[in-house]
Amino acid sequence: MTLLHAPLPGHPELPHHDGSPLHVSTQTPALGEEVRVRLRVPDAYPALRAVRTLSNPDHEPAWTDAVRLGRQGGWTWWEAPVVVANPRHGYRWLLVHESGRVEWLNQAGLSDLETRNTDDFALVAHPAPPAWMTEAVMYQVFPDRFARSAAADAHPVPDWAIPAAWDDPVEPTMPGRSQQFYGGDLDGIRERLDHLVGLGVNLLYLTPFFPAASNHRYDASNFTAVDPLLGGDEALIRLVDEAHARGIRVVGDLTSNHSGDRHEWFQAALGNPGAPEGDFYYFTDAACTRYESWLGTPTLPKFDWSSAELRRRFIEGPDSVVARWLKPPFSLDGWRIDVANMTGRLGDVDLNADVRQVIRRTMIDIDPETLLIAEITNDASGDLTGDGWHGAMTYPAFTRPLWAWLCEPSGAPYVTGEGHERTEPWFFGQPVDGIPRYDARRFAAAVTRFASGIPWRVRLGNMQTLDSHDTARFATNAPDDVIPAAVGLSMTLPGMPVLFAGDEFGLTGVDGEASRTPMPWGTESEPGVAERLDLYRELIALRRAHPALATGGLRWLHADETSLVFVRESADESVLVLASTADARITLPAGAVAGADHASLLFGDAALTADADGESVLASEGVTFAVWLLPGVAVPTGDDDGDA
Amino acid sequence: MTLLHAPLPGHPELPHHDGSPLHVSTQTPALGEEVRVRLRVPDAYPALRAVRTLSNPDHEPAWTDAVRLGRQGGWTWWEAPVVVANPRHGYRWLLVHESGRVEWLNQAGLSDLETRNTDDFALVAHPAPPAWMTEAVMYQVFPDRFARSAAADAHPVPDWAIPAAWDDPVEPTMPGRSQQFYGGDLDGIRERLDHLVGLGVNLLYLTPFFPAASNHRYDASNFTAVDPLLGGDEALIRLVDEAHARGIRVVGDLTSNHSGDRHEWFQAALGNPGAPEGDFYYFTDAACTRYESWLGTPTLPKFDWSSAELRRRFIEGPDSVVARWLKPPFSLDGWRIDVANMTGRLGDVDLNADVRQVIRRTMIDIDPETLLIAEITNDASGDLTGDGWHGAMTYPAFTRPLWAWLCEPSGAPYVTGEGHERTEPWFFGQPVDGIPRYDARRFAAAVTRFASGIPWRVRLGNMQTLDSHDTARFATNAPDDVIPAAVGLSMTLPGMPVLFAGDEFGLTGVDGEASRTPMPWGTESEPGVAERLDLYRELIALRRAHPALATGGLRWLHADETSLVFVRESADESVLVLASTADARITLPAGAVAGADHASLLFGDAALTADADGESVLASEGVTFAVWLLPGVAVPTGDDDGDA
Repeated sequence: MTLLHAPLPGHPELPHHDGSPLHVSTQTPALGEEVRVRLRVPDAYPALRAVRTLSNPDHEPAWTDAVRLGRQGGWTWWEAPVVVANPRHGYRWLLVHESGRVEWLNQAGLSDLETRNTDDFALVAHPAPPAWMTEAVMYQVFPDRFARSAAADAHPVPDWAIPAAWDDPVEPTMPGRSQQFYGGDLDGIRERLDHLVGLGVNLLYLTPFFPAASNHRYDASNFTAVDPLLGGDEALIRLVDEAHARGIRVVGDLTSNHSGDRHEWFQAALGNPGAPEGDFYYFTDAACTRYESWLGTPTLPKFDWSSAELRRRFIEGPDSVVARWLKPPFSLDGWRIDVANMTGRLGDVDLNADVRQVIRRTMIDIDPETLLIAEITNDASGDLTGDGWHGAMTYPAFTRPLWAWLCEPSGAPYVTGEGHERTEPWFFGQPVDGIPRYDARRFAAAVTRFASGIPWRVRLGNMQTLDSHDTARFATNAPDDVIPAAVGLSMTLPGMPVLFAGDEFGLTGVDGEASRTPMPWGTESEPGVAERLDLYRELIALRRAHPALATGGLRWLHADETSLVFVRESADESVLVLASTADARITLPAGAVAGADHASLLFGDAALTADADGESVLASEGVTFAVWLLPGVAVPTGDDDGDA
Repeated sequence: MTLLHAPLPGHPELPHHDGSPLHVSTQTPALGEEVRVRLRVPDAYPALRAVRTLSNPDHEPAWTDAVRLGRQGGWTWWEAPVVVANPRHGYRWLLVHESGRVEWLNQAGLSDLETRNTDDFALVAHPAPPAWMTEAVMYQVFPDRFARSAAADAHPVPDWAIPAAWDDPVEPTMPGRSQQFYGGDLDGIRERLDHLVGLGVNLLYLTPFFPAASNHRYDASNFTAVDPLLGGDEALIRLVDEAHARGIRVVGDLTSNHSGDRHEWFQAALGNPGAPEGDFYYFTDAACTRYESWLGTPTLPKFDWSSAELRRRFIEGPDSVVARWLKPPFSLDGWRIDVANMTGRLGDVDLNADVRQVIRRTMIDIDPETLLIAEITNDASGDLTGDGWHGAMTYPAFTRPLWAWLCEPSGAPYVTGEGHERTEPWFFGQPVDGIPRYDARRFAAAVTRFASGIPWRVRLGNMQTLDSHDTARFATNAPDDVIPAAVGLSMTLPGMPVLFAGDEFGLTGVDGEASRTPMPWGTESEPGVAERLDLYRELIALRRAHPALATGGLRWLHADETSLVFVRESADESVLVLASTADARITLPAGAVAGADHASLLFGDAALTADADGESVLASEGVTFAVWLLPGVAVPTGDDDGDA
């Protein structure tokens, strides 16, 4: 039997609301502030007797009445006040038809059943994310594999390392997977900043730069110095300075769930009952020799966040690790937090909210214009209340649905090597059963589902990545012709676009180890590579040139098996997007978008025409990603039936 | 356009799992315990390559493989281990088809999209609810309106009261709505316990019995004495003793969100800065004259649970109010907590989880076989993790869907009186737009939606009530012929059946005030009343005679516009239920239920026949509620293809 899905939010025949400025009077309300929220109803929709909001202040329902603002471009707009009673304030719409029929509208879409709190639209009264967050296009660098400076040869090779030449293949199995050492360094990155400038990215995310006993450095041995192998503190200062000079911000990567077992704090505590660091970890015997660790990996002992001294040293206050690297001379612009999902959680203990709030308060005291992104590989909605994390590096809200739609069917499971069938899955965070198959409709439904529990403002901070150092490379399993759509969707859907260094060269890699390929410098002009680089440049430029792609509302206008149409909208502009894997001829009803007769094609090869009766028709051949610029959306200002 | 719904959990063509003993090896796992969970797949379902569970221990995904237990009665059963890593441990099923198709199964049903954590099945490792919880049929009494003993005439009429004769009509508007005083007392209830025994109920829920300045007594002036108007402490002791002697347990009603403004603590603090009780409430001025209150009602000042002294006096430890009434000589069997949803919540403060956990720990220390139910009028799932509340008095998970399906369309809004259009809604917790209209399919979908976020064990503690002292009476808006289905559904769906005293007499009342009608003693033999009483007796007896109705699994076998079929199942018995508002002829596929050819009709008037090819056919005329007994469900014990 067929498993049915509700209509997508933004379906052109249904009332619409989202968290964007067109529909919400402020993105940064204070607690207690009255916000105005707006609902738009298409002309063809049945008459409504009343439109209300339902909020849940202090978990008790409260209603407000909407007033009819007027009619404009085929839509009637309603507006209602919502007082922000809690730091994360949920609300939904209640539509009462003249017929008596009642409907509810929340982030999951329109429902003819009463809805739950979890999918409510949500206002956030916590301190705002940095203003630049929505303008950022992120570039992720894994320092060992990006570039070697001339100084790199002088760096000592550490005891744990298996040296590799830059063009050696990546070893996907142990011991090479964590010990193979290519010797990229921070000065190498600095020397290649023009590459980033050329791409148009403006935010550099460095995976860890602290000393460690592995190439990935998620097993830090201290948090107070940059790994000498990467060039030490001075190299970081040089890198950040030169990046800033080019308009590129830089965020680092902290492991709040665990340290390495060589960490100075762990070494001080291990086997030393009574050491000041003894309560930093979960030792399980009196002699302090056994301990909890990340997924049972003994080199990654887990932090116990009930320790006040750990908080003081690591996350709380101006002398903490969190603060230290944000201040001059380092001046990082924020942190990506590794394994944020497990941080502070063990069995019946859950200090996660407390830890993330302390981290953010510490950052705000240094500089509120810093960014805090959490790695929450799976469903992130429970932790994304806006109280700490600005967004998440999370895969089910974009990356996995994208793979499911646009990659080749995988058929058989992929196994990376002995002992890693289950612990190192084919696609990070999913078992080795291959990629599920979604059509375009299900891609949009999955994106909607995983965004529905997240406030709009926080959703805009979610990393929208095709892949990462923890996954296979997207291009490994995708035909070349879908790459524009994949990259294009990362640039045009709500969220922060992310480019994992190397994707712009068309790199492949079958899993999260194999994807950590050294950058193939010098191949920029080779066939295939040049086109791929151009594609990224063009799509990044598109994103950065059109603020509606950053902060505009989202309406899913059409989705079928092979095609997807959506629009991002603001008062200034609308950007219409078509992604399709087959020939498409799609008719949108009158009023679905305004100004199709004045549209200009910004990207791709497709036709948009407006019928005399107001319908719009999109037509394309083969695999297509196309983008048009349309006029902005006018909201009636209260003069009832302004254009009726 | 049509708003689509996914198939209901238990659809006979789809794989099934729920939290019941057929599918889960223990209802009371310890933290760290390995539980075995079982999935059943109908024969006609496409072949599966693998069946797995996906859990989220410490918020990081973990998979286990299921093994095929064998085949039995048209179903293949799979079993997998799940280690309970957190006190509320969510898990879902992952089904990998031979075709490569992947599906997910959670409490919301089967999905071809990856699912979110919120709807996972959930095991609970917190202390178990009392063993008797699932055997309870609750009877709710509003003491002022139940019965007057001979001693009642001697009770003084207090300053706030407007005396009323027993057959005076209830005043729905102020001041009568809170001051009209009928003078029912606890000895009156005691003298009528045979009525409860006759009905077959075994749990008496008393709305507050503390002194107050209103007839509803939710504005307590102290928590240390029974209101003398009700007969004082001795009357409560007599009532509980005699109830216990008849096999009836008794729970009281506590207001943890607020007290009355005449409360001794509030009076001690009001206008007295520095009083020991000064931090019990949220005073907003230095003089302690202004304060936060329940929805702005000045007679109900809100408690501030950051006060350690308030906790000590009220909820924490053996000398607290919570403990006092559970101990001899009072020996209450538990508490219903008023406005539990708002308790401890104000603006950016949320101490709710803390408060409910402290209350429950205090109760466990007195007697773990006590019950703790929270009033959470709307979506309760966020607070029902099993860490404190055993269940909720919550309306969207049963009551509101029932009204939406079985009541008459209301059409116009109902307004109770001047000034109460919005503050006293027609149906508690919903605005005055009338009852939404659901068909049978949407009733089941709404019940499913609001249960999907609640662990099975906690769902069984949810109060399944047709109405209450806060709503209109169900019968007010329902035709007589649907009453059996309404009462029957409360007795046969998972949850605690609740009878609001007076419903068994067929009382009506247009809102939560008018429904507080004095009991019409003496009318038991009148036409209509006698039949209604018999109906309740019969359906309560049905519930109590068949444990599968208390703890058995639930499969929704069929739902269309007018009819609903479901089965409650255990290893010992299955109970099949048909509820229909029109002629029905429903064919269930082979294997949907076993033993239809040996079914015995337990209630109602309908036919169940088994075809030669294994299909079952249910047939009925007109509005119907019918129940059949079928054999229990055999789970293969590991001998593969036992009956193949």
